[in-house]
Amino acid sequence: MTAASPPGGRPAPDAVCPAIPVVVLGLGGVGRTLLQHILRTRESLAQGGLRVVVHAVVDSQHILTDWSPGGIADPELRAIVEAKAARRPLSSLSSSETNKRLTSHAHGGSFESLLPPAGGASRVYVDCTSTADLGCTLVQALPRLAGLVLANKKPLTDSLAVYDAVLRAGRRVRYEATCGAGLPVLGTLDRMLGAGDEIQRIAGALSGTLGYVMAGLEEGRPLSEVVRAAKAAGYTEPDPRDDLAGTDVARKALILARKLGWRLELADVAVESLVPPHLAPAAMPLPLFLEAGLPTLDDAMAQRCAAARRDGNVLRYAATIEGGSCRVGLLAVAPDSPLGRLKGSDNLVAISSRCYASSPLVIQGAGAGNDTTAAGVLADILDMQDRWAGAASGQ
Amino acid sequence: MTAASPPGGRPAPDAVCPAIPVVVLGLGGVGRTLLQHILRTRESLAQGGLRVVVHAVVDSQHILTDWSPGGIADPELRAIVEAKAARRPLSSLSSSETNKRLTSHAHGGSFESLLPPAGGASRVYVDCTSTADLGCTLVQALPRLAGLVLANKKPLTDSLAVYDAVLRAGRRVRYEATCGAGLPVLGTLDRMLGAGDEIQRIAGALSGTLGYVMAGLEEGRPLSEVVRAAKAAGYTEPDPRDDLAGTDVARKALILARKLGWRLELADVAVESLVPPHLAPAAMPLPLFLEAGLPTLDDAMAQRCAAARRDGNVLRYAATIEGGSCRVGLLAVAPDSPLGRLKGSDNLVAISSRCYASSPLVIQGAGAGNDTTAAGVLADILDMQDRWAGAASGQ
Repeated sequence: MTAASPPGGRPAPDAVCPAIPVVVLGLGGVGRTLLQHILRTRESLAQGGLRVVVHAVVDSQHILTDWSPGGIADPELRAIVEAKAARRPLSSLSSSETNKRLTSHAHGGSFESLLPPAGGASRVYVDCTSTADLGCTLVQALPRLAGLVLANKKPLTDSLAVYDAVLRAGRRVRYEATCGAGLPVLGTLDRMLGAGDEIQRIAGALSGTLGYVMAGLEEGRPLSEVVRAAKAAGYTEPDPRDDLAGTDVARKALILARKLGWRLELADVAVESLVPPHLAPAAMPLPLFLEAGLPTLDDAMAQRCAAARRDGNVLRYAATIEGGSCRVGLLAVAPDSPLGRLKGSDNLVAISSRCYASSPLVIQGAGAGNDTTAAGVLADILDMQDRWAGAASGQ
Repeated sequence: MTAASPPGGRPAPDAVCPAIPVVVLGLGGVGRTLLQHILRTRESLAQGGLRVVVHAVVDSQHILTDWSPGGIADPELRAIVEAKAARRPLSSLSSSETNKRLTSHAHGGSFESLLPPAGGASRVYVDCTSTADLGCTLVQALPRLAGLVLANKKPLTDSLAVYDAVLRAGRRVRYEATCGAGLPVLGTLDRMLGAGDEIQRIAGALSGTLGYVMAGLEEGRPLSEVVRAAKAAGYTEPDPRDDLAGTDVARKALILARKLGWRLELADVAVESLVPPHLAPAAMPLPLFLEAGLPTLDDAMAQRCAAARRDGNVLRYAATIEGGSCRVGLLAVAPDSPLGRLKGSDNLVAISSRCYASSPLVIQGAGAGNDTTAAGVLADILDMQDRWAGAASGQ
């Protein structure tokens, strides 16, 4: 026995896989962490005969490319991560060589130059932005792409016409990180559906922020106090009403429902917002909301919690996907159900099906954050490696 | 909106994937259910441009082959399932055409004829047997196989020499169903490790039978009563000592530990058997064990449960993979921990890592049974489809 011996003691694979060529769009927290994960996994992936080659990175203003076989070199990738983390533009990278490969896409025109011509180079595009337009452009360009990995939910929750372009691409599009970050939710549904299981119901707690809020309410604290604490701890969007409105959860629920084959639009998702219209961002500035608006919601919320407790239940902010429809909002559940047992900011997805009839298949864990989200994105990229290997290598 | 519209209303994929050619070894419960799942998913897979072609089925005595492009026809696959479910041999299939394609491998010689010559046809071999020899033969033949899917744990828990042959094949070997049946445990570890997460600890309840037993003990029932009830309900192996000895859990734990890169042999797994040597199958026939042997264990087990309860804990039969070593046995855990909250016969795996540090990634659900196991096997087969598609189809 040689426990925990270095990986070097293990045999190398007998089929060497070529490089996976990628274009990384978006250099915010997820995009930067993705580059860091790519750098960190260089050695372990090489032991498996695998290499991720970054040929281009794109932020909101510039495109930096290197179409040579090795792509952008590791020291330069590190410099890009550092510059963007310090909120410096790509153009701040100093080398004269770099500047030759830098183009501005301030007017959108140069983005087209990133896309391969029909029948051209085989690349995986990775959308780590949160914009609607870029992702949808990529989806429309799918027939020319070898693959598309999305951390961005917007292309998947756009119109069914855009979504149908995703469906047509089949496994050339992966988007595990759009629902539960690194949690294996969508891949699990793919496996279940592919193998002929029939999904009856999905119930999910898909917002760490709202999980934190519901846990605070369960302790008897006023809504306003819990939300202010969550904001102070950095758990919420800059305007916590963006979390409380449930829109992000609705997008995730729609992604799950569409995965089941249901032909729904975002407007078909019934969303219960915890913020009434007269306190919404359009009606009230943030400081006033936090100081005066939010506390007016405390009593009603405390009463709902108390009502649930009288019935022996606890309140959760959950997505329910069942019977062809999709609902997002407060749900009273038994304390010993998967959702009821959930504490803190973990995400949880419970899938009931023919195979998981008496108790659901449950996946639970941290469902947000740059580290887990970027890990989910990189895993999706690596999951495409067989397209560069082929059955022939196994003979 | 057209909720739950028929799949026919969805767009067909723009890249058609060729057929996946398979050879199914073993026609027990898992092998037969796999054939049924293949038949049941014909239509939905066809909508995704995909087809699983069964070219050969093998039971303990015979091989039935059809190497034509369409493979064994669906009516014949149905007849095979029926015959084997009724414990009739493959040779009982009546058609004269079938008998021409049927060979006996009573003496082992004809199995070699199933394997492709070097550089020959591209096939996925699916081991649904529980024998040691056949699976290890397949592993040794891996350089000639396009893929190998294992429901059989034995090749993975054989010597490191055999296991190293699996490692060399990389993603051409899949074995999700060997640990938790259809639960996405090994694939999730693959994704986490590939993306650079660092696994600190895996804790798992990996036996539905022992889960059922521990739940009964927690209710204060005597061990002997719970085991007899589990046997009567069909939850145990024919001899429940096969479950109580923990060997099956030890194999699963070793598969998990080896996935982490630890160079362990099965003998390195510390296994706490719930059956002392003087009551083991070699020392005592089953009826005597159930009547006289088993009740002698009741008091000691009740005392262990009571001791755990005094400390505010509950007892679980669990695998612990941590710090380079692997342990299987009784574990006292907090009632509000993932393992502690587990009820009934569900499996549960909790993975602690850099990304899942404050609370683990938890996967829970039914982890046994022919339906879920065969679903896991079919999902593994389908997961290899990209090898027949290639990056080129995406351009």
